[in-house]
Amino acid sequence: MEKAMEKAIEIIRERTFSGSDSRKYCVLAQEDLDGRITAAVITAAKADGIKHINLCSGINSNWAQRALRDNRAAICFESDEYCITLRGSLDILTDEKSKQENWYDGLENHFSGADDPNYCVMRFTTEVYKLFIDWEETEGSL
Amino acid sequence: MEKAMEKAIEIIRERTFSGSDSRKYCVLAQEDLDGRITAAVITAAKADGIKHINLCSGINSNWAQRALRDNRAAICFESDEYCITLRGSLDILTDEKSKQENWYDGLENHFSGADDPNYCVMRFTTEVYKLFIDWEETEGSL
Repeated sequence: MEKAMEKAIEIIRERTFSGSDSRKYCVLAQEDLDGRITAAVITAAKADGIKHINLCSGINSNWAQRALRDNRAAICFESDEYCITLRGSLDILTDEKSKQENWYDGLENHFSGADDPNYCVMRFTTEVYKLFIDWEETEGSL
Repeated sequence: MEKAMEKAIEIIRERTFSGSDSRKYCVLAQEDLDGRITAAVITAAKADGIKHINLCSGINSNWAQRALRDNRAAICFESDEYCITLRGSLDILTDEKSKQENWYDGLENHFSGADDPNYCVMRFTTEVYKLFIDWEETEGSL
C-alpha cells in the first residue's frame, strides 16, 4: 500500500505543470450548474502529495462557478496503466500568494497577470482516494 | 460543428471494445453512494454515435449501485488532443438481448457468461455534449 501511495504521489507530481510527463492534466468531475454531473480535462497546476491538487481558472468560468455553488468534486489521473481517483472538495482561492504560486506559462493568454481579479486558484482537497496502480487497488481516506 | 460531431463519433467508436484505439475506455463520473462525486476509468463496450455508450459491470458493483441510487452521470473521452464530455443518465439493463450484445472478451473473468444474473449493462444516454476537438469547442444537446 505504501508503494502504491508513493507511486501515486510521483505520477501526480509529474502530471502537474512543472512535471516531466507530457500529460499535464487530469479529469475534474463536478455537479454542473444545471444539476447534471460533468467531467472534463483541466491542467493540473501544482500538487501537494495526493492531498491537494491546485488548478487555475477564471472566477467566472464554469469550473469556478460550479465549485462556488457545490464544492464536491473528484479528480482522476488516468493512463493505460493506472487510474488514480481522488474524491473531495474544490475551494476557490483568490489571495495574492496562492495566485502567484500557482501561475504557469500560458495563463497570460487568459489573464493580465497573477494579480488579475478574474484569475483564481481552485484548490482540490482529497478526502478519499482509490488507486489502481500496478494492477492492484488500494483505497483509503486522508 | 458537423465535422466536430463526425470526429467525436469516430473517436468514441474507436475507443469501444471493437474499435482500433488501444485505449478502450472512458472516464465515468457519478455521485457516489456517500454523496461525494467520483470519477474513474471503465471499459467502453459499445457506442451508438454519441447518444449511447454502453458499459458492462456487476449489478452489485459500485458503478451499478450508484446508478440505481442516482442515474445522473458524465462520460469523458480524452487524450492529449481532444476532450469529449457527455452529460446525461446511466440506466441499468438486465434483459438478455442487451447482455448478449454488449458482452466482450475478458468479462468471463468476472461472470459465468452473458446470462450470469450478476452481470448487467449500464447504458449511458447523452443529454448534453461539449466537444473540444481540433482546438475548437462545440456544445449542444441531443
